[in-house]
Amino acid sequence: MSNPLFLGIDGGGTRCRARLADHAGVTLGEGIGGAANIRLGLDVAWTAIMEAVDGALAQAGLTREVLSRTHIGLGLAGITGVADQQRVAASAPVPFAGILSDTDAFTACLGAHAGADGAILISGTGSAAQIIIGGQGRGIGGWGFEVSDLGSGAAMGRDAVRAALLGYDGLGPETGLTRAVMEKLGGDPPAVVAWVGPARPGDYGSLAPMVLEHARLGDAVGERLVREQADHLVMHIRRLLELGAPGICLMGGLGPVLLEWMPPWVGDVLVAPKGDAMAGGVLLAMRGVAR
Amino acid sequence: MSNPLFLGIDGGGTRCRARLADHAGVTLGEGIGGAANIRLGLDVAWTAIMEAVDGALAQAGLTREVLSRTHIGLGLAGITGVADQQRVAASAPVPFAGILSDTDAFTACLGAHAGADGAILISGTGSAAQIIIGGQGRGIGGWGFEVSDLGSGAAMGRDAVRAALLGYDGLGPETGLTRAVMEKLGGDPPAVVAWVGPARPGDYGSLAPMVLEHARLGDAVGERLVREQADHLVMHIRRLLELGAPGICLMGGLGPVLLEWMPPWVGDVLVAPKGDAMAGGVLLAMRGVAR
Repeated sequence: MSNPLFLGIDGGGTRCRARLADHAGVTLGEGIGGAANIRLGLDVAWTAIMEAVDGALAQAGLTREVLSRTHIGLGLAGITGVADQQRVAASAPVPFAGILSDTDAFTACLGAHAGADGAILISGTGSAAQIIIGGQGRGIGGWGFEVSDLGSGAAMGRDAVRAALLGYDGLGPETGLTRAVMEKLGGDPPAVVAWVGPARPGDYGSLAPMVLEHARLGDAVGERLVREQADHLVMHIRRLLELGAPGICLMGGLGPVLLEWMPPWVGDVLVAPKGDAMAGGVLLAMRGVAR
Repeated sequence: MSNPLFLGIDGGGTRCRARLADHAGVTLGEGIGGAANIRLGLDVAWTAIMEAVDGALAQAGLTREVLSRTHIGLGLAGITGVADQQRVAASAPVPFAGILSDTDAFTACLGAHAGADGAILISGTGSAAQIIIGGQGRGIGGWGFEVSDLGSGAAMGRDAVRAALLGYDGLGPETGLTRAVMEKLGGDPPAVVAWVGPARPGDYGSLAPMVLEHARLGDAVGERLVREQADHLVMHIRRLLELGAPGICLMGGLGPVLLEWMPPWVGDVLVAPKGDAMAGGVLLAMRGVAR
């Protein structure tokens, strides 16, 4: 029982997943916890992490006793630099054999390419790209809904609301899509204003399927809105290639859907992911031993 | 002393101004109060209105006694329909001879064209257009920063932040402007994310002078950002002409500044405002007598 164990954590903004693996990388157990974005506070993040860890231990038939010989690799939303990584390590509620952390995008990229160099482009409600070259990671985009996250469902939905208002006011074309969006949001600008007030990125993102549906039926505004988001993703892909990515995984709920709106060469540079973000966490944890 | 008096109220989101005029339209006094946006609550709005009214009465050497023969015309931010107008009239804290209300954009337009048909296009932190044809008003755009207000300082500033991040990530051109914006907001994406978190439209709008300055020096990104907002205003102007506006007043802190970025024909359709929003309020109040 003296072999080291490895925990890979995928800590996102909505939930946290943990995978326990042995030194050969074989999965022993998995668990789930709450949101582990460190901007919610380190206490909150670690509570969610330990909830997921306890689940993984239980599934493996083990207890917290093994954690002192366990290396943990944490992919956490909200990590922005070395200072955050040190704070995460210093605030661990139990002693681990080793603690390494990085962004959840980094571990997702590590997992997708099984530890090799490569890049990922995630497009769902938000969007973000990550590239790892020579083991060093770099995030591209993904700086939030308001001023970044181009090529995302939230951006597509917001542009649809904008187009709906422009159509209503006669400032832009009025189509089946713009009318459907107006209708869904209450029928007139004051109702739209009331809808927008508390709207979060997820609310805007919930309009994306409607946009995609109309685009597929040839709606001129829908087609433009979808193509714009697809173009934004292609812009990210060009940049990742320019930075030397040997292969790119296109992930998230929207990314693969937009592929058919991208130029044909894009398919040639995409590769399927080899593992998930928890696998990336395990690989990060193993780096702690290799050092 | 039995002649009717007229109060014109310009009730905006930051302050409220009142002008008392006699039946010939001669100003007797003016006053100032707090924000009168009815979305803050009718009590709050009326408190601000009465504060401004009391100031105007004092300046005219009159007391609230005259209000029973005074018609009041209220231009209030946040009014979205007849139901709001009825609620405003029903909640008046003192008896007036007549109460008419409309949006602050409507009274601004009424004042700008001295009661005649015409249109206004306001571009400052936000943007909005208003047209009055045959005495009937219609608002165009101005449905808020998130999904509308195209051709505004806030939109220009937000686009500048977006361009700065794109430049930083190598997703777009990096210029003197994009570097200056990054620098101003903290130097790296995490600092920008922290700045964006609590940012209001006014914060984004505060970046507009920097964009304009760089654009005038030939910065490629600055020029594009300025031209885009100018184009949005031209789009509004085309629409106002299409709706039959005999003349358009271009107002606000940014509108006239952007004129030099617009095509030459625009200057031919613009006219100078004949009066302010309080004058429009007085004209609205006089409509109550004419009926």
